[in-house]
Amino acid sequence: MDFSSKLLENAVYEMSQLPGIGKRTALRLVLHMLKQPERQTEELSNALVKLRSTIQFCKKCHNISDTELCEICSNPKRDASLVCVVEDIRDVMAIENTSQYRGLYHVLGGKISPMEGMGPQELTISSLVNKVKEGEIKELILALSSTMEGDTTNFYIFKQLEGLEVLTSTIARGIAVGDELEYADEVTLGRSILNRIPFEGTFNNN
Amino acid sequence: MDFSSKLLENAVYEMSQLPGIGKRTALRLVLHMLKQPERQTEELSNALVKLRSTIQFCKKCHNISDTELCEICSNPKRDASLVCVVEDIRDVMAIENTSQYRGLYHVLGGKISPMEGMGPQELTISSLVNKVKEGEIKELILALSSTMEGDTTNFYIFKQLEGLEVLTSTIARGIAVGDELEYADEVTLGRSILNRIPFEGTFNNN
Ligand SMILES: [Zn+2]
Ligand SMILES: [Zn+2]
Repeated sequence: MDFSSKLLENAVYEMSQLPGIGKRTALRLVLHMLKQPERQTEELSNALVKLRSTIQFCKKCHNISDTELCEICSNPKRDASLVCVVEDIRDVMAIENTSQYRGLYHVLGGKISPMEGMGPQELTISSLVNKVKEGEIKELILALSSTMEGDTTNFYIFKQLEGLEVLTSTIARGIAVGDELEYADEVTLGRSILNRIPFEGTFNNN
Repeated sequence: MDFSSKLLENAVYEMSQLPGIGKRTALRLVLHMLKQPERQTEELSNALVKLRSTIQFCKKCHNISDTELCEICSNPKRDASLVCVVEDIRDVMAIENTSQYRGLYHVLGGKISPMEGMGPQELTISSLVNKVKEGEIKELILALSSTMEGDTTNFYIFKQLEGLEVLTSTIARGIAVGDELEYADEVTLGRSILNRIPFEGTFNNN
């Protein structure tokens, strides 16, 4: 692309660094901003920079939070003996949206994926194991996407927990195999949490 | 959506104000930024704010430019007697990319579209008519998209030029009817400029 303006070229380049945003889409977005009031571009920029520079993660569940301990972890009405293990904040939002779950969460920050260079060390698995060792958690619900990476991560965690006193379950597979958790409808997702099954049971069925 | 962080919620909201970016996509983009170095978010924000706050348009052709007169208008090797009328900067970039055209441009800033509240006053049509009245321009090539709005705009401009000494042509319709100009391949677009036909000819063919 041959731009008539270096400033435009630079803005399009930066925009096209975002995943799924090609140069053409980036140009369309930037040209749209030029037609909107200047205030709008400033508000977008400020919101992004402020979030990025002051981002915090809950020290207990690792979810994104504006406070040291997130609202869920600091809510005395939630059942701290039950912990649902998820990939990222989108899954927390999806499960909260079902209003079916009253336990806490543990956000892994992804799943094990050698293809994408994600090993167990990149995730918060050791923090999870330490929490289990402290003894307060009675049950862990592994609620990862039912993909190969999700299954690998489930199995890795299950192995790390061997010998510890904790019940491990996975959410019922009402969700189609290969589907991302965050796109499941609320009813299916809510039900699959209520009907969770012991993790060991998934081997016997094979 | 129920966010665990006001900062995150705000960033997603601002991002979803962009056209074609829903809340879900906005969340995906923002979460991506959180995994990248802070510098990257700063560079994106700076590029957008700088462009938006210092944006200039060439005083002659109305294209986006970092200087008062754009590189094309100030190039003595370009034929100033030939002016190609286009909707926006993306069309200038597409035509420049064909390397077939040595004249100047006139950027309208859109096309007449009552549905979108775009009247002739929102476009740079009066500036175009004034330039033609100055007498330097021998030929205008109307290179708008071959949509109903493009045809309406062509016809409106043609009417405004009545009685003035200027040849008016439209680009050859090698481009499929209904297609946006910017998505045409280079060869088709280059050829359609070389094979342009007098604007009046398009009536006789009906
Ligand atoms: Zn928390
Ligand atoms: Zn110019």
